[in-house]
Formats: sequence, structure tokens, C-alpha cells
Amino acid sequence: MTASVLSDWTPGAADKDIPPIGALLLTGVSLPAAAIFESPLAQNIAWMQRFAESHGARLSPHGKTTMAPALFRRQLEAGAWGITLATAPQCRAAFAGGVTRLLMANQLVGEPNMAIVAELIGAGAEFYCVVDSATNVTALGRYFAARGQTLNVLIELGVAEGRCGCRDSAQVEALVGVIAEQSALALVGIEGYEGMIAGGDEVAAVSAYGERLVETVRTLRASDTLRREAPIVTASGSKWFDLIAEAFDKAELREYYTPVLRPGCYVVHDHRLYAGAMADIKARNPGLIGDLQPALEVFAHVQSLPEPGLAIVALGKRDIGHEPDLPLPLRLYPLVSHPASAATAVDISRWKATHIMDQHTFLEIPRDTELAVGDVLAFGTSHPCLTFDKWRQMCLVDRELKVLDALETRF
Amino acid sequence: MTASVLSDWTPGAADKDIPPIGALLLTGVSLPAAAIFESPLAQNIAWMQRFAESHGARLSPHGKTTMAPALFRRQLEAGAWGITLATAPQCRAAFAGGVTRLLMANQLVGEPNMAIVAELIGAGAEFYCVVDSATNVTALGRYFAARGQTLNVLIELGVAEGRCGCRDSAQVEALVGVIAEQSALALVGIEGYEGMIAGGDEVAAVSAYGERLVETVRTLRASDTLRREAPIVTASGSKWFDLIAEAFDKAELREYYTPVLRPGCYVVHDHRLYAGAMADIKARNPGLIGDLQPALEVFAHVQSLPEPGLAIVALGKRDIGHEPDLPLPLRLYPLVSHPASAATAVDISRWKATHIMDQHTFLEIPRDTELAVGDVLAFGTSHPCLTFDKWRQMCLVDRELKVLDALETRF
Repeated sequence: MTASVLSDWTPGAADKDIPPIGALLLTGVSLPAAAIFESPLAQNIAWMQRFAESHGARLSPHGKTTMAPALFRRQLEAGAWGITLATAPQCRAAFAGGVTRLLMANQLVGEPNMAIVAELIGAGAEFYCVVDSATNVTALGRYFAARGQTLNVLIELGVAEGRCGCRDSAQVEALVGVIAEQSALALVGIEGYEGMIAGGDEVAAVSAYGERLVETVRTLRASDTLRREAPIVTASGSKWFDLIAEAFDKAELREYYTPVLRPGCYVVHDHRLYAGAMADIKARNPGLIGDLQPALEVFAHVQSLPEPGLAIVALGKRDIGHEPDLPLPLRLYPLVSHPASAATAVDISRWKATHIMDQHTFLEIPRDTELAVGDVLAFGTSHPCLTFDKWRQMCLVDRELKVLDALETRF
Repeated sequence: MTASVLSDWTPGAADKDIPPIGALLLTGVSLPAAAIFESPLAQNIAWMQRFAESHGARLSPHGKTTMAPALFRRQLEAGAWGITLATAPQCRAAFAGGVTRLLMANQLVGEPNMAIVAELIGAGAEFYCVVDSATNVTALGRYFAARGQTLNVLIELGVAEGRCGCRDSAQVEALVGVIAEQSALALVGIEGYEGMIAGGDEVAAVSAYGERLVETVRTLRASDTLRREAPIVTASGSKWFDLIAEAFDKAELREYYTPVLRPGCYVVHDHRLYAGAMADIKARNPGLIGDLQPALEVFAHVQSLPEPGLAIVALGKRDIGHEPDLPLPLRLYPLVSHPASAATAVDISRWKATHIMDQHTFLEIPRDTELAVGDVLAFGTSHPCLTFDKWRQMCLVDRELKVLDALETRF
């Protein structure tokens, strides 16, 4: 590997490091490095696809989590209907990575962003975005009419004190009228996001919201305002997907609609936030077979041991998400302190990160710990999205920590 | 621009967007976009260089802030002695960007990272790193001796309950002995970071720490353990640089040593955290001429106006730093609500961000505000480092918001 460190480096390629395929993560890769374990990754992709299908729903995983086109392709190969994205540049990156059905779960705002989408549509993309504003609808109608293109839109139905979206059926109805005035816009369904519901009986509120989405799309279909044979109704992040799937799981929807689930984080899951959500889902659905497994970890060296009980780790906000939880210590590989058993992982899940800076994490460790500068620690996270965007390349690894592939991200 | 949206897109290039040079930021660039204003940028680079020189110090700006080689080159052209970095891959990126004197303000840990540095040294880099651990010193000595290379090291002197670094002179002395056993290591000075000092009389503590660094390097020089004609003494982030500069500003240091300051954030400064620090520096130094100016802003569209008093902005944790402060609203450009005066900015510094998610910011706005989806808002930040790493390309702009250049980052 040494000989190729600089010669492999090209502008635009990975800047933290290019994971050398076939190398061992612990000794052959510049750390810190983000690792995705192949086995739970493959299992999660298959599990969620089966879950959606078992409820008669399509799966359009939220791609903003990973922005890794290689993972999008695997999700599509497993049967996903499309990929959900948050912005026009994300749609462009996904399309360039081979995704042709793009669901942008946001309003398309600003002419340079409309220009990106117009070019994607021109290049053959099947594109959908959401609308909740008459101003935006008019701007989109004019922009795409001037180009002779049709833009598929879904009305976003939000929740009071939530994020985007129409708040009630009167607003929806008014927006339907505004959309109808724009011949370049094709209203094809309803979109929502239940993740903003918080407080009170959340389970009941999420289920009721799912039903409200179904009622709304039914009403629109009955009023003959939709320009799609099987109108779309879509919602679901990674926390409440079972409740949304249940609300969408009706014979009528299976036959005459296109129900679409959009979880994103499930693909690598996590070690606390979504692990807890999954436990709740299992509790709500005792018959559920299998579950999601954490697949993303970040490996880093012990950088300094300046005082008893304190380890400084070469891992910072530039390398790993730190919200809602600081990095979660998982395992120690004693490369330096016990080289003879370097590959034998020691459980350190009782250790605790107390502080994180741009390039350093502070770890409270037992005072009698045998630890050395150069030992390697593996960390998990809560909420994977903000770890993916720290890396241009991640290491796909097997159980033995051998690098199988380099996964590029396109943030 | 429309025609080139996809054809310009190449893997490895900017994924959020390639800023079109000559375009106007408000109407010709996909937003959100990060903008660096040329005039305050140039002023900050010149100001800090003059400041360091006026105290007889060299400037080695911390490059981890921006990781933008084009900015490193401008800092060097303005007279900087070198560029400071945090990791081996950062050093590689800087070297590939034309930086030949690299000061890594961390221990060099792990063989793959040592391999990167060995290759940089072999390619002609003048490289320095810090040490605080006997284990690390031994590992470095063996690694570089086996390659027939000499590694320049500085002993890190830390503070109690701080981050890395030897805590007292006994630890320093012991480490000097360990370094002396490694013929491949050249001890060339002392390094410290005063940014961990907090609580009590911070000004007095930082000044005392600066003096301690000077005393330590004097002691080492007197004991003839340093292998550099003009030994290095270096410290200083962007908050206390005046106090460190004052501690280093001695006739003896100017003549026989290489005092090096390492602020990083100054290059674009900020709108709150370092703005406050600069006010303190001005208060401590009434004779100081000029000051630093904020040069970094992030521009984003109003995405949704779902309820009175609430605007959802198409700007998230993926686009802007949010610590220690949420994005700071600066100005409104009423592109849609008042197109005739779209380029006339309205002061919105009394508006307040209340929440940020991966791709959205929640903004509390006056209920009678005339605002439309598609209007553009400019935001400032506290602490610029965690905004730079959200972008692969940033827009260098003039006062009229015309894009002068695309600045690539190498995180």
C-alpha cells in the first residue's frame, strides 16, 4: 500500500483516504475510517424490501441518508420502486449513479434547481416532487410550460406545528385548484412525513396521520383531479414505518393506488436511536420476523493518553455524527497494547465519550485499563445520516474487517 | 447554465453543484450554496500575516478549518511560513495542493498514516508533527529508521484536564530521553494549544501558558537536546492569538527561535463566536489597527411557509454548521416577494432560527412579514470549520454576489 499512497491520489478522489481493496481495516487503512459491514447491510436491504412488499407497498428508500449510488443500485436491484431524495443536486447525483425514478420529498425551489430537474427529465428521468405553496406551483407551472415539459407533483400534507405541507383539507383543495391552472403540472398523489409528530400518544397520532393521507388521496381520486392511473400515497421515515405501512395496507390501495414507503436510515440502521425504534416496532408487531442490524461503524486510533482515566481518540466531528448521542464506544482492538491478540475485540460498550471536537473525541475509561496510543477503537452512532456526509469514500468490509470495496458518497 | 447541468457533472466533481463562474449567486447558482466574499477574505489573510510579523512570529495557519488548497496558496503567497494540519490525509491533500511545509499539530498514529507521511517526506515535504507519548515515539522511531528517513517532532505541552500533551516538565524531560534514543527522530521544538484553557481568569492562564511554552523551549535549547538551529515554539488558535503572540514576542525569540502562530478560523472569521473573540482582542489591544471581518455566508431559499410566523428554509445540517449557534439570519433578498428590488438586501438579523434538521432550518419570523417561497436568505455562522466540511465546492464572490471562482475543499 505504501508505494501507492501519493500516486493513487488524484484531485477529486477521496481526500481522507482511498480504502485499499483487500486491505485489513485495522492495519492497512488510514484511520479514522468509516466501515459498512456487508452482511448486515445486505440483510437490511432485503429485510425492508420484504417488509414493504408484505404490506402491498412500494419501497423508495430515502437516499439522502447515504448519498451512495452503489447502495442505491443495490436497493433497486433488491426491488425498490425508486429512490427518494431531498434536493435537486441529490437527484442529479442519483441519476448519474443509475437511478431513473426519483422522488424528491421537498418543493423544487429556485430556477437553477428547476434547471437541474428539467435536464434530468429531458434525459429520461421519471421525476416527482412535492408542493404545498401556490406561489411555488405557479413558478413551477411557468418554468416547465416554457420548456414543454410535464412535472409530476404530489401535494404535501403536513401536521400542525410540523415542518412543510398543507395543514388541512381546505388548503389541499385550494392548492388542487392552483395546480389545475398549470397545464405543465401533473398532480399524481399525496405525500407526507410523519416524523414531525411528537408528544402525546405518538402511535395513535402517526396511525391517524397515515389514515388522513389515505383519505386525502381517495378524495382527490374521487374528484378526478389526479393525472395518474394508480395515484401515489407516500410517507414514512425510519421510526414509524410499521404504522404507516399498516395504514396503507388496504386491498383498495393495493389495487388502485401506488403506496410508497420511504425509510432511509434502515439501510445501515444504528446502535441507539433507531435500534430503540426497532425494538418498539418489534414490540408493536410481535409476529415480525427478523429485524434490522447496525452496519455502520467508525474506526479510530487512540491518539493520546494524557491523564489516568482519559483517552483522546483521533476521531472528531469531521469523522462521525454526534447527535443525538456522542460516538458510542463498541470494541477495542489492542494493536499496540496486546499485539499478539490485536484482532480479538474487547467489549468497551461501558466506556463513555464525554466530549467531541472537530478532530478529537474525549473518552472516559477505567483507570486500570491497559490501553496504548495506536490501539484501535470501533464506534457506533445514533442516526447514521450525519456520519455518511463526513466521508467521500467508505469501506465496505466483511466480518474479518477485510475491505471488500470502496463506497463513494455524492454529497 | 441550463445546458451544462448534466454534461458538466463528472464523478468526483462537486456533487451539490459546480458554481458557474460569472453567474450571480442569487439567480444563477443552485442554492443552498456557500459563499466566501473576496474582499474580507483578502483583508483577513493580509491582516493576520501583518499581525504575526509585527510580533516577530511566523504564521502557519491551521488548514483544517478550510481544507481548501487554493486558500492555502493564498496564505503562503501572503507570507505564511507553512500550513498547519490535523491528520496525515490532510497533510497529503495540502501537499498535493502545493504546500511543502506541513505542521501536523497531532501525534502521527498508525502505520498507514505513517506511510502517508513517509511518502510526503520522500517527495520533498518539510514535515513536523507533535509527540506526547513514549509508545508513539518508539513506534515512530522504528518506522522512520527502517526507511532511512528523519522525522521532525515537537513535544506537545498540554494543560491539566485539557486535551493531548505532556502535563508537566517531568513528563517533558522523560519524553526528551525517549526521543533521544530514536536516531530517526529530530526533536526541534515545543508545541501547545491554549484553546483548552477554560474557566477562572482565562487571560492570565493563557498568558502564563504562553510563557510556560517559552520557558520549556529555552530549557531544551540550553540542554542541547534540540536538533534545529532556530527551535520552534508554537501555539495559538483563533481566540487568544494576541496573548500567545505577546508571550512569544521577545528579542531572544526573534533572534534564536522560530515562534509560530497557528490560527485557522481567522481566514473567513465568523458572525458571532469569533466576532466576540475579536471584540475582546480589540479591547485588550486598543492600539490594534483594523480587524477581521466575516467572509463566509450560506445562501438558501425559503422552502415553505406553512404557518404564520414560521418559515422553513432549504438549509440543513448538511449545508451549514450549527454549533455553538444555529444559523444566524443576516439578509433577505426578496426575489419572489418583491422581484423589482430582488437584489436589495433587507436586514433580518432579528429573525431567529429555532431548529435545524438534516436538510431544513426552522425560522421564527414576524407574522406580518412579506415573504415568499423562493426568496433567498443569507446566513452567517458561529465557528466556520463545520461549514467548510459540508461543501466540496464553495463560491468565491464579489460584493455584487457574482461568482469569481469555485473553491474546492479536500476533506
